[in-house]
Amino acid sequence: MSDTPHVSCTALPGSRKAHVPGPAGSRVPFRAIDLHPTANEPPVFVYDTSGPFTDPDITVDIAKGLPRLREAWVAGRGDSAAYDGRVVTGEHNGEHTGVGPFPVAHRPRRALEGKAVTQFAYAKAGIVTPEMEFVAIRENLAREEAAEAPARDGVPFAARIPDFITPEWVRDEVASGRAIIPANLNHPELEPMAIGRNFLTKINANIGNSAVLSSAADEVEKMVWSIRWGADTVMDLSTGKDIHNIREWIVRNSPVPIGTVPLYQALEKVNGVAEDLTWEVYRDTLIEQAEQGVDYFTIHAGLRLSHIPLTANRVTGIVSRGGSIMAKWCLAHHRESFLYERFDEICEILRAYDVAVSLGDGLRPGSQADANDAAQFAELKALGELTKIAWARDVQVMIEGPGHVPMHKIQHNVDLQRELCGDAPFYTLGPLVTDIAPGYDHITSAIGAAMIGWFGTAMLCYVTPKEHLGLPDKEDVRVGVVTYKIAAHAADLAKGHPAARIRDDALSRARFEFRWQDQFHLSLDPEKAQDFHDKTLPKDAHKTAHFCSMCGPKFCSMKISHEVRAEAQKGMEAMSEKFREGGSEIYRPDAAE
Amino acid sequence: MSDTPHVSCTALPGSRKAHVPGPAGSRVPFRAIDLHPTANEPPVFVYDTSGPFTDPDITVDIAKGLPRLREAWVAGRGDSAAYDGRVVTGEHNGEHTGVGPFPVAHRPRRALEGKAVTQFAYAKAGIVTPEMEFVAIRENLAREEAAEAPARDGVPFAARIPDFITPEWVRDEVASGRAIIPANLNHPELEPMAIGRNFLTKINANIGNSAVLSSAADEVEKMVWSIRWGADTVMDLSTGKDIHNIREWIVRNSPVPIGTVPLYQALEKVNGVAEDLTWEVYRDTLIEQAEQGVDYFTIHAGLRLSHIPLTANRVTGIVSRGGSIMAKWCLAHHRESFLYERFDEICEILRAYDVAVSLGDGLRPGSQADANDAAQFAELKALGELTKIAWARDVQVMIEGPGHVPMHKIQHNVDLQRELCGDAPFYTLGPLVTDIAPGYDHITSAIGAAMIGWFGTAMLCYVTPKEHLGLPDKEDVRVGVVTYKIAAHAADLAKGHPAARIRDDALSRARFEFRWQDQFHLSLDPEKAQDFHDKTLPKDAHKTAHFCSMCGPKFCSMKISHEVRAEAQKGMEAMSEKFREGGSEIYRPDAAE
Repeated sequence: MSDTPHVSCTALPGSRKAHVPGPAGSRVPFRAIDLHPTANEPPVFVYDTSGPFTDPDITVDIAKGLPRLREAWVAGRGDSAAYDGRVVTGEHNGEHTGVGPFPVAHRPRRALEGKAVTQFAYAKAGIVTPEMEFVAIRENLAREEAAEAPARDGVPFAARIPDFITPEWVRDEVASGRAIIPANLNHPELEPMAIGRNFLTKINANIGNSAVLSSAADEVEKMVWSIRWGADTVMDLSTGKDIHNIREWIVRNSPVPIGTVPLYQALEKVNGVAEDLTWEVYRDTLIEQAEQGVDYFTIHAGLRLSHIPLTANRVTGIVSRGGSIMAKWCLAHHRESFLYERFDEICEILRAYDVAVSLGDGLRPGSQADANDAAQFAELKALGELTKIAWARDVQVMIEGPGHVPMHKIQHNVDLQRELCGDAPFYTLGPLVTDIAPGYDHITSAIGAAMIGWFGTAMLCYVTPKEHLGLPDKEDVRVGVVTYKIAAHAADLAKGHPAARIRDDALSRARFEFRWQDQFHLSLDPEKAQDFHDKTLPKDAHKTAHFCSMCGPKFCSMKISHEVRAEAQKGMEAMSEKFREGGSEIYRPDAAE
Repeated sequence: MSDTPHVSCTALPGSRKAHVPGPAGSRVPFRAIDLHPTANEPPVFVYDTSGPFTDPDITVDIAKGLPRLREAWVAGRGDSAAYDGRVVTGEHNGEHTGVGPFPVAHRPRRALEGKAVTQFAYAKAGIVTPEMEFVAIRENLAREEAAEAPARDGVPFAARIPDFITPEWVRDEVASGRAIIPANLNHPELEPMAIGRNFLTKINANIGNSAVLSSAADEVEKMVWSIRWGADTVMDLSTGKDIHNIREWIVRNSPVPIGTVPLYQALEKVNGVAEDLTWEVYRDTLIEQAEQGVDYFTIHAGLRLSHIPLTANRVTGIVSRGGSIMAKWCLAHHRESFLYERFDEICEILRAYDVAVSLGDGLRPGSQADANDAAQFAELKALGELTKIAWARDVQVMIEGPGHVPMHKIQHNVDLQRELCGDAPFYTLGPLVTDIAPGYDHITSAIGAAMIGWFGTAMLCYVTPKEHLGLPDKEDVRVGVVTYKIAAHAADLAKGHPAARIRDDALSRARFEFRWQDQFHLSLDPEKAQDFHDKTLPKDAHKTAHFCSMCGPKFCSMKISHEVRAEAQKGMEAMSEKFREGGSEIYRPDAAE
């Protein structure tokens, strides 16, 4: 492969790979951040999405793909079998321009006739799968080893997060439909993870080429780069050339679930003419991608013909790509959407591979003006109906949500989604809380994302600074992912997740004790933190300085605060005694409450 | 002056200065954004903080200072008189290193004996000042000329924003203490503005040199740069050399209120030794800065000796510079704070010049762990007591707030502040909703700022990406200001401000109609929006393209949406008729509610 992508394979500064024994000989990955000996604290374990790429003990050859961790688990269940998948032709790849097929061919698996092989089906049958065990260990964040977890505190709304997570509890969450574990039989490279209101808030990063720009060769690195900074799932939204091959390269190298919008490839197959889409083309695309190992499909099956007139007076019409394609198809044929009419058949396919469905919000608002309107909520109601159909077919479901929503209308989205969709996980894009800041829409959307995450959204789809304007470059992806890690973590803090504040407290202690390196290492982006510090105070000595560049030594509040504390400990007791004798009350704390 | 700063003097792209006739022959400034003729829409008027620097009809000579708009207003009231101010010596300037005095000397004014010259006193006496008239026009955002204001919509909490603002209403808000108009008699260059729950949410930018880095010569440009992007007030937090002269240059060239923390200069005068601070040094510093025209002082008078033990078990102790200095003084002398004990006398000084007091939160939390703790709220209670003292002396008051606060604890801050401080405007720093993202703290704090603004905070103090790490450069200041404009605007939208959504809707229409230049021009940062677009699609033709670089022409949802709309308008009616005949209901909208 002349265009074998370069991928990022070093650990983040100050971090090391740490593993906790998992089910069936597996190892559950964490990132351990070791602190300076003066801290006298155990390492901080953080959730690690980066896979083997940051493991110095593993040399990843992306032309071979990652270790196939789940292969034995899947085969061992005895309810699926390998078969000869479809032969990939030019039709599957769009115009071929140079990214060849993945060098190692894998035979796809699917369920045996009459078998339900989804995590949802297992959970409902009372079975704890290795995937659930893996998730349970992962979600606990090794918190029994933490220095001291702060007292639980938060406003969880409808969330009920236990102090400690067991495999059985994970099973029950999946069985109830409140959580999903996207895990296609054909994605054995996956490190299982869960999406649900009662789990850590997750984030998704979108990658992909486009008809106008971008080359295929960098796609694997885009995925590796996204998970390096913390993306929990990655959606491959490629629409251009070599689409099948690119996806194969990504899935074979991805430790996180991969999502797609199969409609994009189906549209390529009919040369971009929406009216020419057929159920047959779409169905074949679903099977093609399911055989590759895509873990969840966005399917815009809730956009019905009758909803289209509701968008007529919108300020920004239909802003979802999938939604606009289906709307065009419906109008051209004056027919109900084939995705809606064939949803039963779609579910049969998904069930055979355990592909989760992410019910797309084709009518999400594209502006403040269109937020929470009749079109949006009519579609949400349809998504609720489809959820029941999918659940009846043992298919794992999540629901996609907006979009552009002012702050005061955010919570209603969560409440209504929960009411209409029976507590299926919510997966939202932002929302952006104002329309007036293109170039900063990672921020306008992070405000909404943090809030909607707090209210109960299970996964937040990132937005980069280039949103509405152009294609994100590497720095944009990093900024987008880190920004969404902020939103997700802020949501976990506000919900009162029992392990969330461990990292905040460790970093704050490091800050107060002038352990600069610890502060950098505990940051979501250690490289940027150190780089910014270096810009003002580049010398090594400044990394141990008991002040910072913000205020200089004379005005350092933290430095003075240490002096105050020392002085207070020394003198307060004696002086207090003296003042009490004199009848003064000035040392008596008089807190407001 | 060899070091005359370069200042930024051009209009933003696509914007022009527009004036509405104001009181006493003045002109109230707006920034008018003209749209493409195909839009068939009037220009969008936005709030303009940038002063004459963006007015092509005015050549600003910063060595002369801005026009002294308010000089005649102040003199005309006949209740103040000019006098010989203090002679500036080396003591006032710290170590002198090259920034000379401002070339034009102005004689300071102060109230005549027994006269109260504050906007608060006038308001209580039923007087509508030109400052109030100016504010009323400014806050209306020329909304009677807007294309169409969207229907009011929002959750205002305790805010009550009228559809249209009159000078009398401004007076009543000031008289009630709910709003302030920071406007020192000695800052006639000021374009008056208001800070209050029922006005547009304001933002403050901090500038200043430090003992470690930064030179004085750029300070004026720092102020000009901050207001160019939208800072409503600027705090000069300089602590280093030539401190008096730098401040004079800034005030003489500032169209926005200037705030300071006089304690910093007082500490310079006693060579940085907190224990050596005296009431006399502090008092002289207040008068010195009041004579220069500083519009509001942050005074940490609420941090009492008895509060200090409450910080003993905090994770991050005392993180306010002023707070830590005063705590050190209190402990060293084992005495109550002289700021608290002398607050009456402080108010007498402030009243004579109409300097507003911003009651500092010296005990604000510096970490999630310390949020809403006993120390913080004990001080807030003291701030409530001081508010009453200031109001009794006719002094305008606002209250400073945190800091680092998880989302679920934000609203309590606003509610308690309102309860304890009688609805005086709240002025908060962020708050940051997590501690784990140094390098991105403009974002962690913008999440909290948008929320606290929605709940009722009147002014948001910005945080730049360099917070906790280093000194902000120009790009950091721009990013910090724009980020806070986002937070403030999102708050106004959520509160249901009657004029807020005009700009969102105009931009969203431009987006839907592919008016790329209009979209850039309506952005908070037109330069960055265009720059990002150029990075992917650099050609001029792309500025009129009916697609964008995100998805390319084939997948453009907006393009398809236009086709859908055209087709729907054409065919829907006929088809609907046909289907109704056949008894079908598929065209009947069935919205969820």
